[in-house]
Amino acid sequence: MNTFGNLFRLTTFGESHGLGIGGVVDGVPAGLDFDLDFIQSELDRRRPGQSALTTPRRESDRVEILSGVFEGKTTGCPIGFLVRNENQHSSDYDNLRQLFRPSHADFTYFKKYGVRDHRGGGRSSARETISRCVGGAIAKLALRQLGISVTAYTSQVGPIAIGRPYTELDLSLVETNAVRCPDPEVAEAMAALIKSVKAEGDTIGGIITCVVRGCPVGLGEPAFGKLHADLGAAMLSINAVKGFDYGMGFEGVGQRGSEQNDYFTTDATGAITVATNRSGGIQGGISNGADIYFRVAFKPVATLLREQPTVDINGNPTVVKARGRHDACVLPRAVPVVEAMAAMTVLDHYLIALGSGHCIPVKS
Amino acid sequence: MNTFGNLFRLTTFGESHGLGIGGVVDGVPAGLDFDLDFIQSELDRRRPGQSALTTPRRESDRVEILSGVFEGKTTGCPIGFLVRNENQHSSDYDNLRQLFRPSHADFTYFKKYGVRDHRGGGRSSARETISRCVGGAIAKLALRQLGISVTAYTSQVGPIAIGRPYTELDLSLVETNAVRCPDPEVAEAMAALIKSVKAEGDTIGGIITCVVRGCPVGLGEPAFGKLHADLGAAMLSINAVKGFDYGMGFEGVGQRGSEQNDYFTTDATGAITVATNRSGGIQGGISNGADIYFRVAFKPVATLLREQPTVDINGNPTVVKARGRHDACVLPRAVPVVEAMAAMTVLDHYLIALGSGHCIPVKS
Amino acid sequence: MNTFGNLFRLTTFGESHGLGIGGVVDGVPAGLDFDLDFIQSELDRRRPGQSALTTPRRESDRVEILSGVFEGKTTGCPIGFLVRNENQHSSDYDNLRQLFRPSHADFTYFKKYGVRDHRGGGRSSARETISRCVGGAIAKLALRQLGISVTAYTSQVGPIAIGRPYTELDLSLVETNAVRCPDPEVAEAMAALIKSVKAEGDTIGGIITCVVRGCPVGLGEPAFGKLHADLGAAMLSINAVKGFDYGMGFEGVGQRGSEQNDYFTTDATGAITVATNRSGGIQGGISNGADIYFRVAFKPVATLLREQPTVDINGNPTVVKARGRHDACVLPRAVPVVEAMAAMTVLDHYLIALGSGHCIPVKS
Amino acid sequence: MNTFGNLFRLTTFGESHGLGIGGVVDGVPAGLDFDLDFIQSELDRRRPGQSALTTPRRESDRVEILSGVFEGKTTGCPIGFLVRNENQHSSDYDNLRQLFRPSHADFTYFKKYGVRDHRGGGRSSARETISRCVGGAIAKLALRQLGISVTAYTSQVGPIAIGRPYTELDLSLVETNAVRCPDPEVAEAMAALIKSVKAEGDTIGGIITCVVRGCPVGLGEPAFGKLHADLGAAMLSINAVKGFDYGMGFEGVGQRGSEQNDYFTTDATGAITVATNRSGGIQGGISNGADIYFRVAFKPVATLLREQPTVDINGNPTVVKARGRHDACVLPRAVPVVEAMAAMTVLDHYLIALGSGHCIPVKS
Repeated sequence: MNTFGNLFRLTTFGESHGLGIGGVVDGVPAGLDFDLDFIQSELDRRRPGQSALTTPRRESDRVEILSGVFEGKTTGCPIGFLVRNENQHSSDYDNLRQLFRPSHADFTYFKKYGVRDHRGGGRSSARETISRCVGGAIAKLALRQLGISVTAYTSQVGPIAIGRPYTELDLSLVETNAVRCPDPEVAEAMAALIKSVKAEGDTIGGIITCVVRGCPVGLGEPAFGKLHADLGAAMLSINAVKGFDYGMGFEGVGQRGSEQNDYFTTDATGAITVATNRSGGIQGGISNGADIYFRVAFKPVATLLREQPTVDINGNPTVVKARGRHDACVLPRAVPVVEAMAAMTVLDHYLIALGSGHCIPVKS
Repeated sequence: MNTFGNLFRLTTFGESHGLGIGGVVDGVPAGLDFDLDFIQSELDRRRPGQSALTTPRRESDRVEILSGVFEGKTTGCPIGFLVRNENQHSSDYDNLRQLFRPSHADFTYFKKYGVRDHRGGGRSSARETISRCVGGAIAKLALRQLGISVTAYTSQVGPIAIGRPYTELDLSLVETNAVRCPDPEVAEAMAALIKSVKAEGDTIGGIITCVVRGCPVGLGEPAFGKLHADLGAAMLSINAVKGFDYGMGFEGVGQRGSEQNDYFTTDATGAITVATNRSGGIQGGISNGADIYFRVAFKPVATLLREQPTVDINGNPTVVKARGRHDACVLPRAVPVVEAMAAMTVLDHYLIALGSGHCIPVKS
Repeated sequence: MNTFGNLFRLTTFGESHGLGIGGVVDGVPAGLDFDLDFIQSELDRRRPGQSALTTPRRESDRVEILSGVFEGKTTGCPIGFLVRNENQHSSDYDNLRQLFRPSHADFTYFKKYGVRDHRGGGRSSARETISRCVGGAIAKLALRQLGISVTAYTSQVGPIAIGRPYTELDLSLVETNAVRCPDPEVAEAMAALIKSVKAEGDTIGGIITCVVRGCPVGLGEPAFGKLHADLGAAMLSINAVKGFDYGMGFEGVGQRGSEQNDYFTTDATGAITVATNRSGGIQGGISNGADIYFRVAFKPVATLLREQPTVDINGNPTVVKARGRHDACVLPRAVPVVEAMAAMTVLDHYLIALGSGHCIPVKS
Repeated sequence: MNTFGNLFRLTTFGESHGLGIGGVVDGVPAGLDFDLDFIQSELDRRRPGQSALTTPRRESDRVEILSGVFEGKTTGCPIGFLVRNENQHSSDYDNLRQLFRPSHADFTYFKKYGVRDHRGGGRSSARETISRCVGGAIAKLALRQLGISVTAYTSQVGPIAIGRPYTELDLSLVETNAVRCPDPEVAEAMAALIKSVKAEGDTIGGIITCVVRGCPVGLGEPAFGKLHADLGAAMLSINAVKGFDYGMGFEGVGQRGSEQNDYFTTDATGAITVATNRSGGIQGGISNGADIYFRVAFKPVATLLREQPTVDINGNPTVVKARGRHDACVLPRAVPVVEAMAAMTVLDHYLIALGSGHCIPVKS
């Protein structure tokens, strides 16, 4: 249950205030150029303390690669990795030992396991997503060679939305601002909102949009292994995610079939393709060669820097106010996590498609 | 890839115009009273031809149980089942052999497999959901004994939405109308819309809402096996589904944490519970004992009874107009499918929680 | 737990005296010529009543293919199949309802499940191997195109052993006698022993040897997915199997490394190969291109046509004497089952190797 | 493929001369007393340099636990662990970069992956079994609370065998000698043989026997998840293992059913049990409450301290002679590895049995 994927697999471990966060990436194709700088740079994108918008915790989060690489190439053997925890203020959490924070996993973990590492959320902390970024970065190394790119961005914060589809945006601008929004003006408004919410000790949710380009036709399995079902599960496994849709998604339910259907045509090379892409690049659970795009809904962070009522572990009323250093909006730092989960899902399905053996030579 | 679940598992087979649809349900707890009438009644809920709103195809869809039951009890051994196809009009589909229907799986299957059963969509047909209803009905037999209920209903058709949360509805009314909408007035409006769309040879999408009641605290796994991630994957694996959210979902992204957090309190018995349930019954991926509720977005059916442009398998422009008998709106018949997938997911997680061994006696 | 394999998967159901035995074969490569006659012929090899050596039960065991094949080709979709039971003498087993047969699964099933289909062993009956033969035959269709063959034979019955390695035998003779032993003289002695044991109402064990030829280098995974580990698990899952070894196996433990090591050399084409094959075609868990060979130990059948002491389900002493029609030695009919399990395992690993993506183009 | 188990799962990484060996143990029941000293002591049993019989490499092999434990208790979250490599003489292996050692995995890894860490065998090194000992030790912590014990011992080295069943041995003597043989006289002869073989630069194989006591009735699944099939796969995944049998195994194939059947009787408490235990504690793939015992065949180590012919990676003839420090017989150090794999397999099946839900309350 701490393993993600089928042929490309990430297994993770680690708690917020334990010794570290790490994991094992298995099923990595052999012979890939292993680009450690790139992997670290992906980790840096989710690191706290990048800007005034994010938590001021300063963790260097350096990844150590423990196996699976030899003389700069992946060997096909599992890649173990470890990111040591540091700069922990466990005492910030002493008051949480005996109570349950609202809308956190404190209560459910305690009831499920009977024992709980209360420090910083323990296993339920978003620090767990460090492992996902490492796994995703390794997946991206393979996707890069296959010509497949994965790009996510913040498309909505609270009520402030870009309001245009990704096709009308310049996605090269995503990393030019702290919000990771490709529309600079909207980004400024989002940043202002986050700062204002933060000043109130409150938090705010939003939506991340993700686009996968260059995906060949044929990824995804009928019935239960549909490509979008696995993308959905991947996104919904990220902390604070409450929803997923792709193509026209929830917004398309009011449409008629005659409005939403994508007609087939041929492109300049004569290849069959869709004239429009309302389907989001997937039909019958299988990629059709068009861009795959989807949305991920994030709730506002549950940790508030203001007093909230709750009960202690004996059920007695009490109040809780977070100490410590927390994000008022997770979206900017969640953008690389969304990309990581998408990259691993797509690569996994690429390998599954290879393993279907439909390339076995048949008698003619 | 045609298997769903971990400890409770459904493996399915079958095409729309082949000999039949069937599967194997594995991991069924032994000793359950096997209620064949109930299973057949669940199948009947998805059967075509139930009302003027659905396709006039008349298939009896009788399920034959082949194994795993002895003297009225489940034996713990796999339950094989088969629903023979009948009343097929394969010739209705002859014109589809050489072309790709817009927004169908024809193109992606053909490119992925190199071979395709074009009749009625083959494996990509929604007839495949017959197997899900059988698996779900068997799961419900176990959930019933555990005091867990699963109820879905049509909450939106096109732009017509109920507009109230499930807590303000009488869910016992769901089966009283052909749309499966618990608000009789809204149901009438929905039915009128579906008929009007159908008359135009067009189709319409919508939203199904599902509620799981009686789920104990502790179902769901941290990290990748979160209960809502598995529910999401289950829903997204259903034909025509484009989105999933739970709790406040997409609608909650505009809220502040202070508005959305669920504070803990105690109930009349002194047990700890949430004062509100914006989280949708799941926190940190684990059920918290409150109702679980989620929404599933369905696109309009791709099959239109009017001409649409497309290309043939050689890329030459052509047109396609569906013959045969088709639904203008899948939601009424998809309600039992949503319930079935939810029931299997919840039971699977119930068994996983048992298998976690957290009940192993520890030294005191 | 009733599913075998990873990318090529067989899921089975069915009891000895239920409606039938069947299953689902998933992960079958698309585009294979589907040879139903071959599949039926493989089933016929395990059918009872083939010769005077086997049980006189006469079941036709006709397989019905329910899906996954279109116009003579596999479609890549799951293949459902069913073999109806017939000619059951369930009343032969009435006396078993209240007691536990020695060395059968009656006791363990009853204690595990609390409910038991006592007729003919229920799920624990060797009739379950029908499904394996169907799955194995489909695997062989794919292996045939890959130039990989799987051949098993009876190498020992009781104390009567061939005493020569497979390399000194003409395996084309396997099907020329009822014992399925490629040495005609030894076969006669084995047959005589089986008849004599049968006349005493007793049973006898033996060894089946299996050879896989044409397997390319590179099948099998390091650590836990070693090719021989999966072959071993496959064989040990067959009813009555008590042991598995490959290469020099148990007989080689007395040797020195200098006696058992296989030195590398080059063949006539200059390709690197082993000079000897004591390793059994697998090194480090991965096929090395040489023949894979292994042995499977079968215990004597537990069902005796003579009185044996036992207890009833309340623990009271009683005696049991089998009625019905039973094999005195399962090996002749187990030969195709061993082949089937080997074929599925090898094809599964072939697909896993494809899915490893080691063929992904790397930057040079 | 680097993951072992279903509900209790070990995922491993690491090469002989990389930074370290480690892994993730997932599915550990929450609330276990975590005994780090015990885990380290299990690791110490496989450590090189314990006696004159084993390789003189001196590695301290200290395990660092990175997660999943809080205030001395397991939390139900994954346990990450790492054993740093040290005392590596990688230059001992420089000569192996361009050639393939006989009966090693050098050739198969090279052909499978196209890239190979030649130092000390890389991933195929028996150092990988460190991870298994850690996982096994954690499993033993749980089994201990369940009253289940796992004990292995060296029962044969080369031709020198104990010649008596485990029931006639005092297994408390296993750890009293360097060979881990419970018969002190036989142990001396084995030790003398190993020394003599070592002096010749040669190696020798043998057999390890393992006994599981206290296993409740009901572990193991019908069809493909038989308890002995999973034990067999577990053992065959250990480096140098060539065979597995249980109960009477290969030695029983010459027997009649009337000789090998275990009759049922009642014990002093009136509970139903077997009068004899030729079945090895498992019937129909499910534990019957009697001791489980099995044998594991090890080939002689392939690394010889003498010249052997081979070819280089271009196929040119050459010779290889191991430098470095190597075992002449792996069995003494493999005893804890056999126990570890058995412990994980049994605990996994214990959890699977819990997860079968056969304890779900049924209507009466």
